[in-house]
Amino acid sequence: MAERSDSAYARAGVDIAAGERAVDLIRDLARSTFGPRVLTDLGAFGGLFSVEGLEQPVLVASADGVGTKLKLAVQLRRHTTVGRDLVAHCVNDILTAGATPLFFLDYIAMGRLEPEVVAQVVEGLAFECRQHGCALIGGETAEMPGMYAEGDYDLAGFIVGVVRRDRVVDGRNVRAGDQVWGLVSSGLHTNGYSLARRALAGLPLEQRGWGLERPLGEVLLEPHRCYLPAMRPALEAGIVRAMAHITGGGLVGNIPRALPPSLAVELDWGSWPVPPIFDLIQRRGEVADAEMVQVFNLGLGWVFVTAQEAGERVRRLVPEALPVGRVVARENGPGVRFRGRDGLT
Amino acid sequence: MAERSDSAYARAGVDIAAGERAVDLIRDLARSTFGPRVLTDLGAFGGLFSVEGLEQPVLVASADGVGTKLKLAVQLRRHTTVGRDLVAHCVNDILTAGATPLFFLDYIAMGRLEPEVVAQVVEGLAFECRQHGCALIGGETAEMPGMYAEGDYDLAGFIVGVVRRDRVVDGRNVRAGDQVWGLVSSGLHTNGYSLARRALAGLPLEQRGWGLERPLGEVLLEPHRCYLPAMRPALEAGIVRAMAHITGGGLVGNIPRALPPSLAVELDWGSWPVPPIFDLIQRRGEVADAEMVQVFNLGLGWVFVTAQEAGERVRRLVPEALPVGRVVARENGPGVRFRGRDGLT
Repeated sequence: MAERSDSAYARAGVDIAAGERAVDLIRDLARSTFGPRVLTDLGAFGGLFSVEGLEQPVLVASADGVGTKLKLAVQLRRHTTVGRDLVAHCVNDILTAGATPLFFLDYIAMGRLEPEVVAQVVEGLAFECRQHGCALIGGETAEMPGMYAEGDYDLAGFIVGVVRRDRVVDGRNVRAGDQVWGLVSSGLHTNGYSLARRALAGLPLEQRGWGLERPLGEVLLEPHRCYLPAMRPALEAGIVRAMAHITGGGLVGNIPRALPPSLAVELDWGSWPVPPIFDLIQRRGEVADAEMVQVFNLGLGWVFVTAQEAGERVRRLVPEALPVGRVVARENGPGVRFRGRDGLT
Repeated sequence: MAERSDSAYARAGVDIAAGERAVDLIRDLARSTFGPRVLTDLGAFGGLFSVEGLEQPVLVASADGVGTKLKLAVQLRRHTTVGRDLVAHCVNDILTAGATPLFFLDYIAMGRLEPEVVAQVVEGLAFECRQHGCALIGGETAEMPGMYAEGDYDLAGFIVGVVRRDRVVDGRNVRAGDQVWGLVSSGLHTNGYSLARRALAGLPLEQRGWGLERPLGEVLLEPHRCYLPAMRPALEAGIVRAMAHITGGGLVGNIPRALPPSLAVELDWGSWPVPPIFDLIQRRGEVADAEMVQVFNLGLGWVFVTAQEAGERVRRLVPEALPVGRVVARENGPGVRFRGRDGLT
């Protein structure tokens, strides 16, 4: 295909040969995620996936990106972690309804197609897909001259999972007095990076310090944690009444999405550890407490609700779950309250 | 939420209030596409869609973008047509396997979130979804400061459709001697815009001429045609052996994707009309014939194959279908040959 490099399309900034090289690089990675329900190989116009024989199947779908965490990946020239981020984020989103993943598709757009960068991203996608039994059945790699700065790219992911209709988790059984549990995050996950990058601008990414256990860049690029493995036993036991994935909008924006509008959650400040990276962002960025809880997960990436009396079973099935608060009547107040932190009600 | 405009996040370029305004604007548009299988309202982390009761369900999924046609939309400040483009493109992609759409999700990313632009795009998405019985059950609107130039945005779409397993169209029954049919495109669809924009640079978009029936900008922004309505009767009759959607890669790149590797297609040049916009691009861009067929649909946006003896039924069920060629043995030659055009074999 090298003969095309002098073509009019190449002069317009589109390299068909690079596109084909990218497809070659990702084909085997994608195949490594295939299970018996995948009916097609790559190359067709659509990916085929059988859902025959599933009971009362409800599909749950979500679309996501990884935001300006991409800028850090470009700066550090490490592109596998954003692939992992994207899949983990998507799996978490559908997990809130009780769904487990079936398949995933990606969209990667860049100004000048760099097949090796695409391959690294897809390596991360495929890795994380394999962890969760999710088939990477398709995707689109777009070369868009003039749209992205040199080296930049955007990345979006689409996931479809399934849950039995009588197992859908939608918060409708949540009651005042229910127990609220949390699972710790692995860092910022994929939210708040525009704010974080501005707050930390000028700090060397390779440096340790500020209470961080690893260099700053590594802490910031740490992949988004996927909560499916930890939650699966509790879901199979049917004891989970609501789940929230703490993404854009932070603790304050996401927990209410999982609850009936008449209920709120009271979180006990100090009942989970806030990783030092958040303190660093808050101090350097001079960010108010009230805004920190609207942007970041602050160490609590996943919140779920059970009946008070299910405590014993939760401790057995999800041993790492932290009791972080309780469901209360909302009474026209905010959907999330904080106990034990001045300035946050 | 106006009180947040002084927040650290706002100073970092992220406007949460604008995000919420965008969600308000698109909520009703999305709801206008919902059918009885949609189990959720917007606001949850994932969209829920029941597939209970479908026979031998095979899901067909595809991810796509609209490429640098977006640059034209930005230039002309018309954002509904790219929304329509994206859905039509995705519906066509899964239609190649015989699938009809179930649901769609979008991803819109911009540097500074402009709720009115997002609303226009989603208006186009919802319009086209309604045409084809497709539910717009979710999406992601990402504000990414520093990633996109002022006014620019990227757009990706993700579709899931369904086909009965015994109705999957995959080209396996295609034989040498089969009849090849074509359906005319509505223009460039969503491919080749980087080349087209370069070739036509400097021409005023509001101008008529060059054999075009409408101003140049309108011809270029014309929405991608969706072939589902035209093809449905032939699919229900079970007479279609293979279908190709002529997207990136043009006639030469896409037709072979629908065929077994031992077969090729011979197209009769002149058997379908090539719209004047393609001649204009070719002349102004000094693009070789051999490249035109590798980039553009050249007026033929959809190609399908039936047995020779099905001709009578095709003429009745798809009256606009043009007989454009035949299936031949490939014999190590190219997957598409052209008859009647010097320089193209």
